[in-house]
Amino acid sequence: MFFKISLISACLLCGTAVAENLRATGDLGVVIEREQGSALLVNSSHRTVLKRVEALGDLSHASVVFSRDQRYAFVFGRDGGLTKIDLLRDKIDKRIVQAGNSIGGAISQDGSLIAVSNYTPGGVKVFSTETLQQVADIPALYQGDKRSKVVGLVDAPGQRFVFSLFDAGEIWVVDLNDPQNPQIQKFQDIGKQPYDALLSPDGRYYIAGLFGENGLALLDLWRPELNVRRILADYGKQDDKLPVYKMPHLEGWAMAGDLMFVPAIGHHEVLVIDKREWNLVKRIPVLGQPVFVMARPDGRQIWVNFAFPDNQHLQIIDVKDLSIVQSLQPGKAVLHMEFTPRGEEVWVSVRDEDRVMVYDTDDFSVKARLNAEKPSGIFFTSRAYKLGL
Amino acid sequence: MFFKISLISACLLCGTAVAENLRATGDLGVVIEREQGSALLVNSSHRTVLKRVEALGDLSHASVVFSRDQRYAFVFGRDGGLTKIDLLRDKIDKRIVQAGNSIGGAISQDGSLIAVSNYTPGGVKVFSTETLQQVADIPALYQGDKRSKVVGLVDAPGQRFVFSLFDAGEIWVVDLNDPQNPQIQKFQDIGKQPYDALLSPDGRYYIAGLFGENGLALLDLWRPELNVRRILADYGKQDDKLPVYKMPHLEGWAMAGDLMFVPAIGHHEVLVIDKREWNLVKRIPVLGQPVFVMARPDGRQIWVNFAFPDNQHLQIIDVKDLSIVQSLQPGKAVLHMEFTPRGEEVWVSVRDEDRVMVYDTDDFSVKARLNAEKPSGIFFTSRAYKLGL
Repeated sequence: MFFKISLISACLLCGTAVAENLRATGDLGVVIEREQGSALLVNSSHRTVLKRVEALGDLSHASVVFSRDQRYAFVFGRDGGLTKIDLLRDKIDKRIVQAGNSIGGAISQDGSLIAVSNYTPGGVKVFSTETLQQVADIPALYQGDKRSKVVGLVDAPGQRFVFSLFDAGEIWVVDLNDPQNPQIQKFQDIGKQPYDALLSPDGRYYIAGLFGENGLALLDLWRPELNVRRILADYGKQDDKLPVYKMPHLEGWAMAGDLMFVPAIGHHEVLVIDKREWNLVKRIPVLGQPVFVMARPDGRQIWVNFAFPDNQHLQIIDVKDLSIVQSLQPGKAVLHMEFTPRGEEVWVSVRDEDRVMVYDTDDFSVKARLNAEKPSGIFFTSRAYKLGL
Repeated sequence: MFFKISLISACLLCGTAVAENLRATGDLGVVIEREQGSALLVNSSHRTVLKRVEALGDLSHASVVFSRDQRYAFVFGRDGGLTKIDLLRDKIDKRIVQAGNSIGGAISQDGSLIAVSNYTPGGVKVFSTETLQQVADIPALYQGDKRSKVVGLVDAPGQRFVFSLFDAGEIWVVDLNDPQNPQIQKFQDIGKQPYDALLSPDGRYYIAGLFGENGLALLDLWRPELNVRRILADYGKQDDKLPVYKMPHLEGWAMAGDLMFVPAIGHHEVLVIDKREWNLVKRIPVLGQPVFVMARPDGRQIWVNFAFPDNQHLQIIDVKDLSIVQSLQPGKAVLHMEFTPRGEEVWVSVRDEDRVMVYDTDDFSVKARLNAEKPSGIFFTSRAYKLGL
C-alpha cells in the first residue's frame, strides 16, 4: 500500500518534471562543429544551445535534412556516415556508414526515404528514414561498367530525386513511388563535369553548374520533353589566369521572385539573372569572391559571404533596388548563414572565432552570441517543409 | 530507504512511458468542428486524430495561427473568443473573450504578439502570445469618434500588422516593434467597403477586395510612397442581377510564380492574373462559383471548391497549361482544403458527411477518411512559418 501510494506520488512528481520539459520542434536547429565531428542542438526562439551531440564522424563537408515531423535530423558526413539525431532526446538514434566518400543527401517528399549521393562507389543509395535500412541502390553506371561520382542530389515533387553524374555528364531523375523498382529517366550530354546543382524553391527548375565548360545545364521538370538546355553561356571560370579561391555552392544561390542571385566565379560580383528568360540583369560589385548568396525568406534581402581572404565580411543587398545596403564584420571565417523561418533574424557561423552570431535583419543589430567549436553549417527544422534540399 | 528506491523505480517507469509518447510538432494540425465548437488535433504523417478539444465557443467563422515553436494553436472564434491550445498536452492552455464580435487574427513575425481584428467594438487588440494579456489596443477611429469594423488583418515583415477599415475605406499599417507605442501609417480613400484582404506569400503586396465598388486596392509594402492604387478595375460584383451565393475569401486566393488565381464573384470562372502588370491573363471555366482557390505548395496545381449548390465538387487546375486536369466529388459541402507541407497530400473537410478526406495530389487517390463532426477549417502547423496569415 505504501509502495502504491509512493509510486503514484512519484509518477505525479516525474510527470510534472517531464511535462515542464515538453519540447516542440518548430524552432529547433543543428549547428555543425566541423573539426570535432559534433553538432549543437539549438533553439532559435530563445537563442540557446540545448545540447552537444558527438561522434558524428568526418563533418568537413556536412549537410543536414529533417524528418517530416521535425523530430529527427539526418546528418550526412564526408566519410559516408549517415547519422539520425533525435531532437527530443538529445542523442543519436541510429548511425550507419553507408559508403566510402559521400557528398550530401536529400529526403523524399513524403518523408519516408533518405537518398545519399556518393563519390565512392559512385551512385545513390536510398534508406528508410525510420530504420536507416537500405531500400534501393542506384549505381551511377555509364559507358558500360564505369561508375561516375554523383553530385547535386535534390528531392523533387512526385516522390522523385534528381542528381548529376560528374564523370558522365548526365542528369538522372529517379521516381521512387515504388522503392523496390526505381524508375530512372536519363538525360545525356548535358555538359562537361557537372559539379553541383540546385532546384528552384517551387521544385520546377533543376540547374547544374559545369566545371568542364562554361554555362549552366537547365532541366525544366514540368517539361522534361524539352530536354536539358544550356543557359548563361558566359557563366563559368572564364579566365584561366583568375584565381578561384573556392567554387561556389549552388545550393547557396538565391531565388527571390523572378530574380536569381548567383556568385560570379572568381570575380567580386553577384550576378542577377531574370529566370523568365534566363538573362543577366545586373552585376552587383561586392567586396570579395562570393560563396553563399542567400535570400531572406521574404525575398527582400540577399546576404552574401565571401571566400578567403575576405571571409570576415558579410554584405547585404536590398532586392528592391539591387544595391548594397549594409556591410558587417562578424569575425574571422564566416562560413554559413541560416535565416529564422520568417526571416526576422539570421544565424551566422564564424569558424575562427568559435562563435555563432545572431543578427536582427531589420536593423542589423546583434541579438546574441553563442559559443561553438569551429562552427560551419547551420540548419533549422523549417527545412523539413522545403523542396529541393 | 524503501521509499527512495520505489521513487527511483517509479520515475524510471514513468520516464519510459513518457518517452514513448514524445511528440514532435512538425506534422500536427487542427480541424475545426464548427457546430459544436470543438477542434480535432490531428497528425498528417499517420493521418490520425489525436484528440478532440472542446469548449472553444462559436466557431462558425474560425481561423487558426500557430506559435513560432509550433507548440500552441491560437483559435479565433466569431464570438471574440481567443483560445490557446497546447498541442503537446492536448488541452486548452488559456482562453479569453476579448471582444463581442471578431473576424480573425494574426501572429507577429517574431511570434511574440497575437493581433485580433474586431467588428464590435471596431479595432485591433494585441495580446502577448505567452500570457494572452493585452499589450495594445488600436481603436479603428475615423471621422472623429466613429469606429469602423476591421477586416483583412495580416502580419507582415518588420513586426508589422496590416488591416482594412470596412466603414472608413482605409488601410492601416501598424509597426509593433515597441508594442507600448504602436506606429500607425494610414492610407485613406482606398475604395468603398474593403471586406477582406490578402498578403502575397513574400509579404510584399497587400490586396483588399472592395464590396462597395469594383476593382481591388493594392498596397506595395516595399514602396508605400506609391500609395494605394486600384487594380483589376472590372473585378467585382459587376452585374446586380447575378446571384452571389458566397463572397469569396481573399485568403483563399492563390499565388503560383507570377500568376494569381482568383475566384470570379458570381461567375463560374477562376481568373488568372499576372502580377507583374496586374492584368487578366485567362478566365478558366469551372463547374460552379469558386470559393477557395488554393495552390499546392510547389505551385503546379490549383485546387478549387465551390459555393452551394455545387459544393460537393472539387476541381484541379494544372498551372502548366492553365486547364482543368481532374474533377472530384468528395461529398456534400466541401468547405476547406489544406495541403501537407510539401504538397504530396491534401486534406479536405466535407461538412455534411461528417468526414475529412485525404487525397494523394499526384494520382488523386483517396489515402484516408477521418471522422469529424461538421468539419470546416483545416490548419497545419506548417503555417507557423508563413507570412501574411
